[in-house]
Amino acid sequence: MNERVINYPLPPEGNALRLLGEEMHGWARALFHLPRSLTGPGVRATLAYIGDVLPGLSLFEVPTGTVALDWEVPDEWTLREAWIEDTEGRRLIDSRDRWLHVMGYSEAVDAVLSREELEPHLYVHPTLSNAIPYVTSYYQRRWGFCLSQGQKNTLGPGPFRVRIDSDLKPGGLSYAELILPGDSDREIFLTTYVCHPDMGNNELSGPVVATALARWLTTLPRRRYTYRFVFGPETLGAAVYLSRHMDHLKAKVDAGFVITCVGDDRAHGFLPSRLGKTLADRVGRQVLRHRAPDFTEYSFRTRGSDERMYCSPLVDLPVVSVMRSKYTTYPEYHSSLDDLSLITPSGLAGGFSALADCIATLEANERWLATVPGEPRLDPRGLKPTISHTAGHNLSHDLMDVYFHCDGRHDLLAIAERLDMPMGTVASLASELARHGLITPI
Amino acid sequence: MNERVINYPLPPEGNALRLLGEEMHGWARALFHLPRSLTGPGVRATLAYIGDVLPGLSLFEVPTGTVALDWEVPDEWTLREAWIEDTEGRRLIDSRDRWLHVMGYSEAVDAVLSREELEPHLYVHPTLSNAIPYVTSYYQRRWGFCLSQGQKNTLGPGPFRVRIDSDLKPGGLSYAELILPGDSDREIFLTTYVCHPDMGNNELSGPVVATALARWLTTLPRRRYTYRFVFGPETLGAAVYLSRHMDHLKAKVDAGFVITCVGDDRAHGFLPSRLGKTLADRVGRQVLRHRAPDFTEYSFRTRGSDERMYCSPLVDLPVVSVMRSKYTTYPEYHSSLDDLSLITPSGLAGGFSALADCIATLEANERWLATVPGEPRLDPRGLKPTISHTAGHNLSHDLMDVYFHCDGRHDLLAIAERLDMPMGTVASLASELARHGLITPI
Amino acid sequence: MNERVINYPLPPEGNALRLLGEEMHGWARALFHLPRSLTGPGVRATLAYIGDVLPGLSLFEVPTGTVALDWEVPDEWTLREAWIEDTEGRRLIDSRDRWLHVMGYSEAVDAVLSREELEPHLYVHPTLSNAIPYVTSYYQRRWGFCLSQGQKNTLGPGPFRVRIDSDLKPGGLSYAELILPGDSDREIFLTTYVCHPDMGNNELSGPVVATALARWLTTLPRRRYTYRFVFGPETLGAAVYLSRHMDHLKAKVDAGFVITCVGDDRAHGFLPSRLGKTLADRVGRQVLRHRAPDFTEYSFRTRGSDERMYCSPLVDLPVVSVMRSKYTTYPEYHSSLDDLSLITPSGLAGGFSALADCIATLEANERWLATVPGEPRLDPRGLKPTISHTAGHNLSHDLMDVYFHCDGRHDLLAIAERLDMPMGTVASLASELARHGLITPI
Repeated sequence: MNERVINYPLPPEGNALRLLGEEMHGWARALFHLPRSLTGPGVRATLAYIGDVLPGLSLFEVPTGTVALDWEVPDEWTLREAWIEDTEGRRLIDSRDRWLHVMGYSEAVDAVLSREELEPHLYVHPTLSNAIPYVTSYYQRRWGFCLSQGQKNTLGPGPFRVRIDSDLKPGGLSYAELILPGDSDREIFLTTYVCHPDMGNNELSGPVVATALARWLTTLPRRRYTYRFVFGPETLGAAVYLSRHMDHLKAKVDAGFVITCVGDDRAHGFLPSRLGKTLADRVGRQVLRHRAPDFTEYSFRTRGSDERMYCSPLVDLPVVSVMRSKYTTYPEYHSSLDDLSLITPSGLAGGFSALADCIATLEANERWLATVPGEPRLDPRGLKPTISHTAGHNLSHDLMDVYFHCDGRHDLLAIAERLDMPMGTVASLASELARHGLITPI
Repeated sequence: MNERVINYPLPPEGNALRLLGEEMHGWARALFHLPRSLTGPGVRATLAYIGDVLPGLSLFEVPTGTVALDWEVPDEWTLREAWIEDTEGRRLIDSRDRWLHVMGYSEAVDAVLSREELEPHLYVHPTLSNAIPYVTSYYQRRWGFCLSQGQKNTLGPGPFRVRIDSDLKPGGLSYAELILPGDSDREIFLTTYVCHPDMGNNELSGPVVATALARWLTTLPRRRYTYRFVFGPETLGAAVYLSRHMDHLKAKVDAGFVITCVGDDRAHGFLPSRLGKTLADRVGRQVLRHRAPDFTEYSFRTRGSDERMYCSPLVDLPVVSVMRSKYTTYPEYHSSLDDLSLITPSGLAGGFSALADCIATLEANERWLATVPGEPRLDPRGLKPTISHTAGHNLSHDLMDVYFHCDGRHDLLAIAERLDMPMGTVASLASELARHGLITPI
Repeated sequence: MNERVINYPLPPEGNALRLLGEEMHGWARALFHLPRSLTGPGVRATLAYIGDVLPGLSLFEVPTGTVALDWEVPDEWTLREAWIEDTEGRRLIDSRDRWLHVMGYSEAVDAVLSREELEPHLYVHPTLSNAIPYVTSYYQRRWGFCLSQGQKNTLGPGPFRVRIDSDLKPGGLSYAELILPGDSDREIFLTTYVCHPDMGNNELSGPVVATALARWLTTLPRRRYTYRFVFGPETLGAAVYLSRHMDHLKAKVDAGFVITCVGDDRAHGFLPSRLGKTLADRVGRQVLRHRAPDFTEYSFRTRGSDERMYCSPLVDLPVVSVMRSKYTTYPEYHSSLDDLSLITPSGLAGGFSALADCIATLEANERWLATVPGEPRLDPRGLKPTISHTAGHNLSHDLMDVYFHCDGRHDLLAIAERLDMPMGTVASLASELARHGLITPI
């Protein structure tokens, strides 16, 4: 019992991590041009692909009209194709190039229109002339085309043949769940979203890193925590998931992560939970402080993903985001420039590693109590030289620094915070203390 | 019930505020040359004038000899006139010019004195050669004349005829009280003093602003709080008032303000309560941070007015001062130069507005609880556009920032502090949430 | 009762302090060349000398083999002499010069050795070429000589006659205790160590300052606290003492001090307790902030003396060190250069004064409660002028600053902290309030 070893699972690193980065980028490439939206076949195809990597993944469908908290599942949207042609039948805009060309949830249209009639249905990016903007209208029936300012400039005077071949009819909202049981029924909650077509950092980085984390967790010899992964459309998916599991999540979740924007190489960002003081907050800050000391901590006021559901005042789960470049902070956000070149294998690997460190930190984060009053003798245990010389500090000092905080009140994370050490170092030192029976779990 | 509107009474602003500033300055001019002191006819005349503006004002008299806490009401002082003449009967110093020429509580004298005999009875300002200092000797019988160094330099060699026509005999201490009932019997306590003759910022600014605040409160359609105004002499008046009402005040007062030094245009100052953490402290700091970000927060060690009574350790009321230029911090303090030109209509208006903001903040400061788990849908309520475009932050974000703190634990003031927003903005956003049933009072 | 005077015993100062510094330095000179080690006659002789100054000092012996917490009392070591001679019988190294020449706990040796055979038994200082290093091997049998690099350079090629005349055999560990009863059975714990031969700041400064503090305490007319002094070998002595008194210490001690490194003139240092928030921490910081505003507060991670026992997690006593130059921070530490010239009469006097201020602070540190609601009248008590003039702050203001914190919740130390005043000033002001019945002990 006293020698129970601290469970700090070492995440992949070095070449294994490099290869994992490549693999994740491959998944992103495969998933890129699926027509994801709030609902529809693109979401299902994405979840099916992830299910191939994660065998236990369960798929769920929630019918149109289902009420979820303050929300309701709308009609399902199926987009087959969309284009604008000139009078000679030349394709000027074509959804085969980027699904982003179609406003999300556009109703069907098939008409010949003058330039003037088409104009109100054209959307361009407010600042980037070469970017197709990402525009949706989920709850108000509209149709529209999104295009770059450059494309718009060369459309010509018209008339145009305009066609959007889409359906809006009762169907369902799709999401997937994977539960990996651990020694305890206390849970770590990880959620990501699958609803943006053709985008990299603010979409595919999330599901591919979540997939890699889940697969890594299945390989561990031991999990103290139970892990719950959710893949679904942003906002409404979270509302649906909460409407079914809120009481359970409020009772069981010790820490949670919205996995988003974890794919580029440019920055590290942290979004705290509502009040910023939960275990998840402590873990996220501790990991980033040691991995990326120049990380940016954003205010919860800049929230924008599913913490809008999970951290809302009547839900108030301990959910944070440990990110690379945060949504809204980089220029390509919500545009066609957030593509497969913006996310990189090393960026994804970095996003994965930061979250894997969070998981390892949580796994190791128990409270321990010293077994010996006074400082223990280290030399007979081989933990210190038997000769005392003038020189001062040595490694046994770090060992004792950890020992001196094993008072049953500080968890290992609190010790890492106080000593300003990486959690891996603290876990390793505590393991050595535990192996020698100098501390006992509490 | 869910739609109960936040009660944030909007104080006068713009032209109404400008006119109020002029009106307050007019009151100050009318009150200026009344012979105020710790007791006596000048105090009574001042309270009578205020009573004309505030019909419900109740006047009280406490007889000489009454013990109040550690204090005792002294003999009443009546000063009719005082002067120094030369041998030709020329008035050299005359209380008709400024009552400040007479040391407060001077006993009567009528004598011809040599310059040498007169000398120990002459008081000049320690640093300002053109200022008459303010000097009193309430508890030790003395007589004296206060004059500028310039006046003293030209007195000549004497002899002098010196006359102070005054009485010191049993009478009473006068104070006035106005109680404005509200929905609740919880109270806001506002006190100011009327005992300095001929002075502007450190005297008349207090009673005229207090009078304007009380009159404004009477015009409000609703008061959540009950308001208690006290006008009396400084220090002893507070001791007398506490001796009669201490238990009530300790049981009922949620926040209090000593209204003093609220009439010039040069600065904003804040004196916290004894330990600096009461509701009144939070309100005062919040209001000044947004009205006058460069305001000075003084240490409680620099206290000097009736918080000496109300914040004393066995009383410990939540009383602060929200000021313009604080007593002792401006050169003209306690001298004839603190006159009607030092206080201005706009200075008084600013002092009024800061305190009115404090009152509005207190009125609005309730706790609310979200009614919907998860973030509510804003678009069907008309609170957000139905189209989602690339652009980020919008006004609905501020609305949700307030919503996300409506957890039943943060009062609106705490929300304003966390969001670093003016309380008026938070109250307005919370009102909109309440109107849509998204939050409910707790 | 209301007039109970604050017990702030004034430590010696001026000439008395200067003479005390000289006396302490004299004690250090007398003790310098006793062969102190973990055990043995040098420790006993040291304790006997201290006992001559402190009549009530009790001596204890703990037999070899006694288990103390995680430790065990080893064989007793007696060193009679040790030297290295060349073949002509010339002494090259001789313990008569410095006991430091012999590795602590060296076993006996008497042999003729080649330079090559001798080499592994020679220890030099890692950085200072003219310093003999301090080296011990308490728990692993070895023998060795310590010498300066300069001495080593001139040893010559050998062979050498090498002799260490020492015993390692069952005996005992010695320590001494002095208890000075006070009004209360709450205790202040002061401990120092006697186990380093021939060293000044990191050894003798501790016992001589502790001795002076104990003698000073015996002269006081009143002690609120009971004082417990312990003199014994570092680390093991503390383990032994704790093994006998831990429950008592945990139940009774309000503050404790490891007295070490209190003899030089170069710096002031502070080592906090384990978590840094005990009464002892507050006292140490308060005293040094006013005595030596540029003092260095070290991290508890740099601990190195008996707080390793007394502050260990299962013991967790409120023990700190108020020092001059802290061990490991000055170059001469643990070498022959930490000698009688490094410690000075004024350095020792400064170390004594800082600790005496801590004791005076603890003696005075009671809670008081105002007796009068409202600010009391000061003029009839002679505490304030009877005339009120333009000038602002005066001494009565400091008196009232203390009075306003006498709320029964702030002890006098908390008041000193809030007012940023020396504790002696606060105690003096509180005494004046108490003499006038304005505050009462709680």
